[in-house]
Amino acid sequence: MLSAADNTLLVQTDPGTGMGDYFRRFWQPVALSAELPLADGAPLRVKLLGEELLAFRDTHGRVGLIEPKCAHRGADLFFGRNEDCGIRCIYHGWKYDITGKCVELPNVPEGSAYHNNIHIKAYPTREFGDVIWAYLGPPERQPAQLPQLEFGVVPPGHRFVTKRLQQCNWAQSMEGALDTAHFSFLHMPAPTLAKNDTMTAAADERRIGWLRNDPLPQFKIVAHDAGFVIGGSRHADAGQLYWRITQFMLPAHSITPSAMPGETYYGYTWVPVDDHSCWIYVYAWHPDRPLAEAERAQYARGGFGQFAELGPGYLPLRNRSNDYLIDRQAQKTLSFTGVRGIAEQDAMAQDSQGLVADRTREHLSPTDVGVVRFRRAMLDGVKDLRAGTEPAAAQRPDAYRVRAGGAIAAAQEPFEAVMQARFGSPTGIVAGAVSGVVSATATNPQHNADSGSLSEKAAP
Amino acid sequence: MLSAADNTLLVQTDPGTGMGDYFRRFWQPVALSAELPLADGAPLRVKLLGEELLAFRDTHGRVGLIEPKCAHRGADLFFGRNEDCGIRCIYHGWKYDITGKCVELPNVPEGSAYHNNIHIKAYPTREFGDVIWAYLGPPERQPAQLPQLEFGVVPPGHRFVTKRLQQCNWAQSMEGALDTAHFSFLHMPAPTLAKNDTMTAAADERRIGWLRNDPLPQFKIVAHDAGFVIGGSRHADAGQLYWRITQFMLPAHSITPSAMPGETYYGYTWVPVDDHSCWIYVYAWHPDRPLAEAERAQYARGGFGQFAELGPGYLPLRNRSNDYLIDRQAQKTLSFTGVRGIAEQDAMAQDSQGLVADRTREHLSPTDVGVVRFRRAMLDGVKDLRAGTEPAAAQRPDAYRVRAGGAIAAAQEPFEAVMQARFGSPTGIVAGAVSGVVSATATNPQHNADSGSLSEKAAP
Amino acid sequence: MLSAADNTLLVQTDPGTGMGDYFRRFWQPVALSAELPLADGAPLRVKLLGEELLAFRDTHGRVGLIEPKCAHRGADLFFGRNEDCGIRCIYHGWKYDITGKCVELPNVPEGSAYHNNIHIKAYPTREFGDVIWAYLGPPERQPAQLPQLEFGVVPPGHRFVTKRLQQCNWAQSMEGALDTAHFSFLHMPAPTLAKNDTMTAAADERRIGWLRNDPLPQFKIVAHDAGFVIGGSRHADAGQLYWRITQFMLPAHSITPSAMPGETYYGYTWVPVDDHSCWIYVYAWHPDRPLAEAERAQYARGGFGQFAELGPGYLPLRNRSNDYLIDRQAQKTLSFTGVRGIAEQDAMAQDSQGLVADRTREHLSPTDVGVVRFRRAMLDGVKDLRAGTEPAAAQRPDAYRVRAGGAIAAAQEPFEAVMQARFGSPTGIVAGAVSGVVSATATNPQHNADSGSLSEKAAP
Repeated sequence: MLSAADNTLLVQTDPGTGMGDYFRRFWQPVALSAELPLADGAPLRVKLLGEELLAFRDTHGRVGLIEPKCAHRGADLFFGRNEDCGIRCIYHGWKYDITGKCVELPNVPEGSAYHNNIHIKAYPTREFGDVIWAYLGPPERQPAQLPQLEFGVVPPGHRFVTKRLQQCNWAQSMEGALDTAHFSFLHMPAPTLAKNDTMTAAADERRIGWLRNDPLPQFKIVAHDAGFVIGGSRHADAGQLYWRITQFMLPAHSITPSAMPGETYYGYTWVPVDDHSCWIYVYAWHPDRPLAEAERAQYARGGFGQFAELGPGYLPLRNRSNDYLIDRQAQKTLSFTGVRGIAEQDAMAQDSQGLVADRTREHLSPTDVGVVRFRRAMLDGVKDLRAGTEPAAAQRPDAYRVRAGGAIAAAQEPFEAVMQARFGSPTGIVAGAVSGVVSATATNPQHNADSGSLSEKAAP
Repeated sequence: MLSAADNTLLVQTDPGTGMGDYFRRFWQPVALSAELPLADGAPLRVKLLGEELLAFRDTHGRVGLIEPKCAHRGADLFFGRNEDCGIRCIYHGWKYDITGKCVELPNVPEGSAYHNNIHIKAYPTREFGDVIWAYLGPPERQPAQLPQLEFGVVPPGHRFVTKRLQQCNWAQSMEGALDTAHFSFLHMPAPTLAKNDTMTAAADERRIGWLRNDPLPQFKIVAHDAGFVIGGSRHADAGQLYWRITQFMLPAHSITPSAMPGETYYGYTWVPVDDHSCWIYVYAWHPDRPLAEAERAQYARGGFGQFAELGPGYLPLRNRSNDYLIDRQAQKTLSFTGVRGIAEQDAMAQDSQGLVADRTREHLSPTDVGVVRFRRAMLDGVKDLRAGTEPAAAQRPDAYRVRAGGAIAAAQEPFEAVMQARFGSPTGIVAGAVSGVVSATATNPQHNADSGSLSEKAAP
Repeated sequence: MLSAADNTLLVQTDPGTGMGDYFRRFWQPVALSAELPLADGAPLRVKLLGEELLAFRDTHGRVGLIEPKCAHRGADLFFGRNEDCGIRCIYHGWKYDITGKCVELPNVPEGSAYHNNIHIKAYPTREFGDVIWAYLGPPERQPAQLPQLEFGVVPPGHRFVTKRLQQCNWAQSMEGALDTAHFSFLHMPAPTLAKNDTMTAAADERRIGWLRNDPLPQFKIVAHDAGFVIGGSRHADAGQLYWRITQFMLPAHSITPSAMPGETYYGYTWVPVDDHSCWIYVYAWHPDRPLAEAERAQYARGGFGQFAELGPGYLPLRNRSNDYLIDRQAQKTLSFTGVRGIAEQDAMAQDSQGLVADRTREHLSPTDVGVVRFRRAMLDGVKDLRAGTEPAAAQRPDAYRVRAGGAIAAAQEPFEAVMQARFGSPTGIVAGAVSGVVSATATNPQHNADSGSLSEKAAP
């Protein structure tokens, strides 16, 4: 449970807000590279963090991200001609390069001071992992390198990337990713079935059984330089525990908990559009081999894992406007929800909390420990920034090269040992990462190995 | 004409408003029973008096009416599983019974105080007359019995019930029902025709002639324990009067004035959805015989009397968004309006006053006496309630068992005598009603037998 | 660049605003005559200057323009019966003539004072040039005559009139008409082509070349009694200048600069609907001959010059909601914009400045001199009116009989001489106009022959 003030602070990311300032310390995805496929191609409207911007790929393939209003009389550069290393306003031909400099002003006499002094707002961009990233913060704080999320580091053939629009505030959707307790309900097949039609490829029947039979997983959290890793353990067979391990990286990245050793990894990154919607960039990658054509086809088709079936504008076909095409008969007989698709089930649950979840009326449970930790991390980050402390994670790109997934271990095995055995490190950082220093998890017990104390709320 | 303050007081029914408090002293229709046909079936979104609620029929057939936000983290229980005497949140499986008690919390450890202390808001419901009713007021004021409207008291085969959405404030729509003077225009066939294509079954040609030829009916009003009855008399043939008699029962029920002795009765009940729309529950009943299949088919098809032709969501096919499909050629040649259907004509006239009628700019006429009386009754009721006087009608369920309709009488016959002859009582109460005490109409002349003095407004 | 206060003053025309008062001193188009084709036909909803009104043609063919709320209880007279010299409310039959007088009140007793004292708001109307005009200002200021725009003065066979909806504030759209510098870009064929598919009939290839090759025309402005005329000169062949001459008449009329001697003239008039949209009445006329059927067909089909291709409600098919069907491939190869139609290109540029252009962030150029002059004229007019000085132009109807178009002249020829040669007068007034006195252009150099000093903004 949060105060109304903290709830507001958590969710709002427009320019001038605390969380907006915090997000602007990090590189953000602004589009898929595939959305700007061609040099001098059609420009693309982009909105993030409450800012309406225009992206275009210039003659040399570089991506510009600019405020789309011509400095002359405010015509929309979206309609502009993208030609010869710049975008030209259709009204009177003023032309801007990717830095926002106005390089041609045909209706201004020679000799005018305008010729070297007109600029529009522009943000630096980079491409990484088939995604265009931008930095919207103060230039002097710009991180030198993008977060080295592993999906972007592997060869292009090893990954698949897309995105989808989520019709609610970013923070409650992010919380859904960090709350793996909901797997025991939201994504379950109907009680009469052993497996879920939408989960067959991602989880076997045994795992479904463990998830269904233990709705009260035990959680451990270990902090690291980019965020924290959450392990949720459920009773498995023969006295063992089934661990589902999730990564959170500041400000809004996550890796999902399903991948067993050797399986494909999945992750996602949230980008607020405005306070009532957000983009979720979704990626699959395999560190060791290219993805097969069948896998890519499955992801592109959607309705599999975090890959939703998409309609125009990357909006899932099953969405808020059509109640996710909930099928009440299927809810009786096939799945817990009657909604097809894990991504769509998540969207339904998260959207259903409202355009912005009201966190002042909650009754949190110990299984919400990841959610609580996330909120604390974000609110601490914002308050620290306001007090002058920059977010350290923004300057630690290699700390983002972490993995997450599932593991089966003996009941007495500590979480750190499970992590070491599964990933080769107690935090999930990839062994080969150039950097990857893990903060000492013992020195700050308040921020590490947190096992369920809910500082927000007295335990029930 | 009302002051702006009284207009606001009259129309607003959200929680915390004066009229909202007043309505909450009475049982309200919340859905047709047919909208929740099955035990453990799909739940139903319901909105009334500005509250967004969820109705569901549990395993035992009982109807729950709850606030649809899960107490855990606010997910929408509309998507929940309706199973085993409760509705279960799809996010983490919390389950609520029809009283709003959270009876299962799977992700909360045993022993937590949560297990017996989580409740969400729930309202008591009953079924009567194929309608689900709820009481949204303070529990200590809950009337023991539903209003014994005759359509609900007769055997099920004797009635037909449906509803329709009206796209304006409830009060101006209610006024339309109490203002029978408009029959001389709104529902007339074109001046060149003797009968209206939409009225043939409800009124014969003679009646059309009387309505058309006397646009200035004379009104009498008699109060009773549930509200009041209005008689409007027009000149008929041979010096007789044609009386059209309408019932109003607090806070928003009415019986229509068309039924001649032996004919089917019609009534309706208004329920505000919000300040800009309302439900109208519409019912036909015959005290003496089951309704014929042909009658039911006609009502179900719509376009007959108060039964509109309905599209999805019980919205009339001819509605505000399409100008009621007004046909200007038909307006020249077939009907006064060019709009098909009496219910649709009413909707057009009422909607056209605005989403909320501005009663500060009116010029009322003596034929508006029923409208004036209605406003006074409602405003007095609200003001009395604020001063601590509960509405007596809410505790007089039997006083609602009244009838209304048409009569032909000698010109010198007083209204009370016409009532006695037509209905067996001066107020229209059904002789067999258990209770039915009529307040002395002579003792309070200001509130009884009101024949047109407009306290709101100097007579023109 | 304007201050925020002046921007607001310029754009807002609702009742009670300064610019709204100013517009209300002039007759305004409210509908095409063709929208009310028949006596006693269907009435027409009209909105202008923020007022929602109802127009109807009565039995004698006269047009009424009234507030559409019945004085009785506010029902919408749009649904009324238009019959026998009045419009009759469908609710209780009150009937209004074109002056707004309530001439029948069937449900009001004889002898009531209502019978001679009920009026609703009504505005005087006239028809001229196949357009219905109305005067919405104070009666004592009503100009005796409509502005004698030449399209309305010529025989009906010599003109074609239509209108289109523009989805932005009126003032920026008006500015687009006065800013002929944009022809060098917005309406150009692609750089690789010699002619524009949308311009072939209006301009020959030589003119296209001159426009394309000189994006920095030189402007001269001459004031006259109805407004001012702007000449923009570009380098043509053999040391000559190509003049494009545009008329502006208060408060919002213009004549386009393309017509060469002997060609058809084009003009348009803006009428604000509200602050976010406006009507543009568009007309073609030939002073000397009837328009040919082929010309009429081309105008009616649209996609030619200022005649857009129209969909329902006179909304252009290519509009704000569909990004004007911009074709990025066509933008590479066929035209500067990839949008078909000059009117549509203008709409795109003007809409793209926002629902209301933000004039506080501009960087004006010397080619914006017409825009600057327009703003100054309007803001001066509003401020003068507030100070008690009525707009003189409203009382000079003959001063509106002016022409504009193109001319080719020797480089040393002064603008006034070019005008005299092309139109027979230095201001473009038609020689045969009854009146047509031209204000001495020499006595007030600040308001005349303005050649580019931008009092709003230091020259760049």
